[in-house]
Amino acid sequence: MSSDRLTEDFNAAKPAALARVVSIVENHRDGFEQILGSLHSRTGRARRIGLTGPPGAGKSTITALLVKNFRDQGLKVGVIAVDPTSPFTGGALLGDRVRMENVALDPGVFIRSMATRGSLGGLAAATREVADVLDAFGFDILLIETVGVGQSELDVARTADSTVLVLVPESGDSIQTLKAGVMEVADIFVVNKADRPGADRLRNDVELMLGLRKGVSFGNMPAHHGVDLKRVNPARAAREAAATTDPKAWTPPVLSAVATKQEGIAEIVAALDRHFAYLQRSGTLRARRRERLRERVMDVVERKVSDRLWKDSRTVAWLDEQLPSVEEGTATPFAVADMLLRQSAELVRGEQRT
Amino acid sequence: MSSDRLTEDFNAAKPAALARVVSIVENHRDGFEQILGSLHSRTGRARRIGLTGPPGAGKSTITALLVKNFRDQGLKVGVIAVDPTSPFTGGALLGDRVRMENVALDPGVFIRSMATRGSLGGLAAATREVADVLDAFGFDILLIETVGVGQSELDVARTADSTVLVLVPESGDSIQTLKAGVMEVADIFVVNKADRPGADRLRNDVELMLGLRKGVSFGNMPAHHGVDLKRVNPARAAREAAATTDPKAWTPPVLSAVATKQEGIAEIVAALDRHFAYLQRSGTLRARRRERLRERVMDVVERKVSDRLWKDSRTVAWLDEQLPSVEEGTATPFAVADMLLRQSAELVRGEQRT
Repeated sequence: MSSDRLTEDFNAAKPAALARVVSIVENHRDGFEQILGSLHSRTGRARRIGLTGPPGAGKSTITALLVKNFRDQGLKVGVIAVDPTSPFTGGALLGDRVRMENVALDPGVFIRSMATRGSLGGLAAATREVADVLDAFGFDILLIETVGVGQSELDVARTADSTVLVLVPESGDSIQTLKAGVMEVADIFVVNKADRPGADRLRNDVELMLGLRKGVSFGNMPAHHGVDLKRVNPARAAREAAATTDPKAWTPPVLSAVATKQEGIAEIVAALDRHFAYLQRSGTLRARRRERLRERVMDVVERKVSDRLWKDSRTVAWLDEQLPSVEEGTATPFAVADMLLRQSAELVRGEQRT
Repeated sequence: MSSDRLTEDFNAAKPAALARVVSIVENHRDGFEQILGSLHSRTGRARRIGLTGPPGAGKSTITALLVKNFRDQGLKVGVIAVDPTSPFTGGALLGDRVRMENVALDPGVFIRSMATRGSLGGLAAATREVADVLDAFGFDILLIETVGVGQSELDVARTADSTVLVLVPESGDSIQTLKAGVMEVADIFVVNKADRPGADRLRNDVELMLGLRKGVSFGNMPAHHGVDLKRVNPARAAREAAATTDPKAWTPPVLSAVATKQEGIAEIVAALDRHFAYLQRSGTLRARRRERLRERVMDVVERKVSDRLWKDSRTVAWLDEQLPSVEEGTATPFAVADMLLRQSAELVRGEQRT
């Protein structure tokens, strides 16, 4: 199929074209940047909702129920599962099972697993790109499910407009077992399996932690890509800090659910709607989406540099020649890196080497 | 303290200097590259052992017992914990507790938690650098503990000479819940809590999987940094493939342990010794270490590029100016990235912008 024909079919919302485009983008096949570029102007309409939490917290069950709820509202839903323990990705399900078959057979639902992707290009960058494809195709809601343990997974959670953190009383220690930073990313907390012992204590722990957190604003979030906003753009940093220390700013609710009994799902949807309204009202949605675009460009820049350097056989061969002296300790990785960059300006610019 | 004095104290093996240098390197404080460069020639002596597996598998208990075993042999041991659930990092311990206090007070043991690190610079790159510091300081054994779930964590596991994968029968599904690729990285499998039901089935599952895996050689491992060895260096790829399809090549043993009863630890140490002897005999140690140096250089190159681009206020301001048109869809992230790279050659080379 020609690339024009593929774009045409994609724009006509043909499901086969969607699957094809996602696959090209996900695997960085030839032409993926052109395709992403051509659909870029159609992105920015979907609401991106992240679900994260420790393995066994019931994220997938909640995801399936959220899909059903949004479908009942007539919304089209895309699911991106970046969690190896998710049944969406063929993994084991540690909690009780909600039947996924209905969800999977509904044409208004598209499910994509990214659990088996390698590190090539970065998981967060790849997730953002697949999300862009689904957004451009016309899905109204994107649910991004990720396990809240690893660093890359935390970066994925950061790509959403709203992030739901699912916790369970079983692991009363579950707050501590989460990757540092996961708590800070959450806009909505859900204590799942809330009919089990320890649920109240967990709720208390979370609320205590949220009390401590007050006053920590968006402007204090860890810098991405090493960019300190306050330094490079003080005006914007101040604007964002003002938006988030506003007394009407968002206070994350701590909800209860028993997903296996389908209890608490409507409350999660209502909280998501309230959060989205807050994001729009406060200007935070616009700020987050602009930040996401900035991340997108920076990701593309870094990937282009890596591709241009490491797919050049002369550069790789040159590096290979230097390794024995690095091994012997007569050269250091830093000196070799400096030399490599001094001679690679044309490559980085995207030109042929002279 | 002057940097010369610090290096002097470090070379004289003063513990305070070690803690100071690790902290400078871990946080990328000013001068960290000079320090790493100056100690580079003293690296390459420590055996690097990775321990990975799902949360609650007992990795930390096994790590503590391995520390004790190596200490009894008179070896100095460094522990790098990249696992938020590890008691070494102050996290919750899901299994039974082995008292860590003795280990922590022993001057022949150094424990460093990297659980709270942000994504800045990359977890695997940061772990390799801290490992280099401990190596140069004179530790004989480095134990690197990481949870086998996330992508970054898998990359960390890949930085070791030998990798131990710890599984437990409780999660009979534990093989499926692991990040794809973790099984392939393991040199030694340990079924911990082997006195519990399901241990035999788990052993069988692992051995079945290993049988299927036979013939998968080092040369088939996922390419790092997008470099396909077979393309850029066919001779080396062939050499490595030959080394690993050798009939005398390593077959990962599947061991049993009950760490809380201190059972099975000597067998793990013996298997590690056998694996290390195999690595030396087959030339794989040299190949892996050279590969690790290559990764080091590539990491440094990519970090330098990011630093030079994103710490330049003019570049960041320029990017900021482009974002509205990316937002409106009149420019794409790819076009902006290309423009940015075309005008950034001097920066990438490390020169002042003209």
